[in-house]
Amino acid sequence: MNEITREALFNQVRAWTLQAGAMIREKIYEPRTIDIKSNPKDLVTEMDREIEAFYANKIKSYYPHHYLLGEEGYGDKEIDQNKTIWILDPIDGTMNFVNQKQNFAISIGIYDKTVGEIGFIYDVMNNNLYSAMREGGAFKNDRKLNRLDANKQLDQSIICLNHYWLMENKYFDHRIGQQLVRDARGTRTYGSAALEFAYVAEGALDAYVTMQLEPWDIAAGKIIVQEVGGLTTNIFGEGVGMLDRTSILTCNPNLHDTLINNYFKQAKKVT
Amino acid sequence: MNEITREALFNQVRAWTLQAGAMIREKIYEPRTIDIKSNPKDLVTEMDREIEAFYANKIKSYYPHHYLLGEEGYGDKEIDQNKTIWILDPIDGTMNFVNQKQNFAISIGIYDKTVGEIGFIYDVMNNNLYSAMREGGAFKNDRKLNRLDANKQLDQSIICLNHYWLMENKYFDHRIGQQLVRDARGTRTYGSAALEFAYVAEGALDAYVTMQLEPWDIAAGKIIVQEVGGLTTNIFGEGVGMLDRTSILTCNPNLHDTLINNYFKQAKKVT
Repeated sequence: MNEITREALFNQVRAWTLQAGAMIREKIYEPRTIDIKSNPKDLVTEMDREIEAFYANKIKSYYPHHYLLGEEGYGDKEIDQNKTIWILDPIDGTMNFVNQKQNFAISIGIYDKTVGEIGFIYDVMNNNLYSAMREGGAFKNDRKLNRLDANKQLDQSIICLNHYWLMENKYFDHRIGQQLVRDARGTRTYGSAALEFAYVAEGALDAYVTMQLEPWDIAAGKIIVQEVGGLTTNIFGEGVGMLDRTSILTCNPNLHDTLINNYFKQAKKVT
Repeated sequence: MNEITREALFNQVRAWTLQAGAMIREKIYEPRTIDIKSNPKDLVTEMDREIEAFYANKIKSYYPHHYLLGEEGYGDKEIDQNKTIWILDPIDGTMNFVNQKQNFAISIGIYDKTVGEIGFIYDVMNNNLYSAMREGGAFKNDRKLNRLDANKQLDQSIICLNHYWLMENKYFDHRIGQQLVRDARGTRTYGSAALEFAYVAEGALDAYVTMQLEPWDIAAGKIIVQEVGGLTTNIFGEGVGMLDRTSILTCNPNLHDTLINNYFKQAKKVT
């Protein structure tokens, strides 16, 4: 993807994303139908579907040769990985959307031949748009984000993880998770993977770790975090492909080895 | 305290609090000295002290017969509980202030003869001011907050609790905390007690539970939560006095019995 094509695409996606956010804000206090997906904690609303359909229609009209991979089923059934692919979560943090009416995000990553080129994470209610183009730096609205502090130590760090990873679970030894809570300065849980990536990018969190994410939870965040010098791998330090469903560690570069070697590698469960 | 005195005091405190918030925003990106208090997770900055001194000076000049109880030591050594007392946390969530430059609050509760009359919680960086006068309702900025949903069930609820309560600890049986995580719709951790009270008041959280708070963490939040019909007790359902250092459960009224009887009473540790 050449520079000019990419910049035009970036500006187009930016405009659509601000428009999609305004659509959400306009209707957020209306009563709505909430569907329960796989279990009572897995929710979807008509707003998730409406926003995904909005992007699907735009892409079909303006970029008919691009592919869409979306959470809610408006995307393409078959993806050609050698083409340009939009990876979309129309509302990341649906539980927050339903219960809190805040702390959710639109997340879009655009990949060309599997290389991440453009990322957007839009915190709709706070009107904060995080964005990046590959090798162009990352931004929060119009402010360029600083490179992450290369000297950050674990005992000065805030780590983001779900409460589940401190309880018996099938992915890893929760006692190691508990040790991490003791060793870090603090721990937080926000309930939106996309926003948690964005907070890592702006340095408000120093690491975000979770055991299972889908491609649309990761696609934008990975690109944005990379642009401030952060690292995104699975929890054993292995690279994450564009379509992987995987555990994720995204963090300050100075914490990556420590977290993997002193915690997550030791927590590996033999399955 | 009569109505006219109280309303004048409310407006005065409101103006000072907005002013204090502006002082913080002006300096937040400056380098600062961070002191470690009792342990490496217990932080204080010169900003905590500067803001408490700001209020202490104002109170001394304008309300010389009032008392101040503050976290940082600018308050009165002896408090007469039969008078008017300001209970202040100049920066609640100091770790967030230091690491995140957001997600902290100024918290002020004003009590007259031990009765909570006025509460303010100011989310400085998002410029959201939560406030209440006793029997006058609670507000987020100029918007009156709704009464909490009297039919809320635990499996539709988001509960706020620190990761520590899911690990072996001296206060209560962590396995009961883990069961609560499984039974609720979701769990979150934000790292500022005052903001967590405010989120309960606006319905973004349905309960916030913690094992040990100081009076200045509780003073404002209890008044604001009460004005939307929420309940604040210790985790065994007992009332919380103005100067108590105690565990806290502040929640939607429909969850209070369930949380105490099905969880926290069973988790009690005999000491």
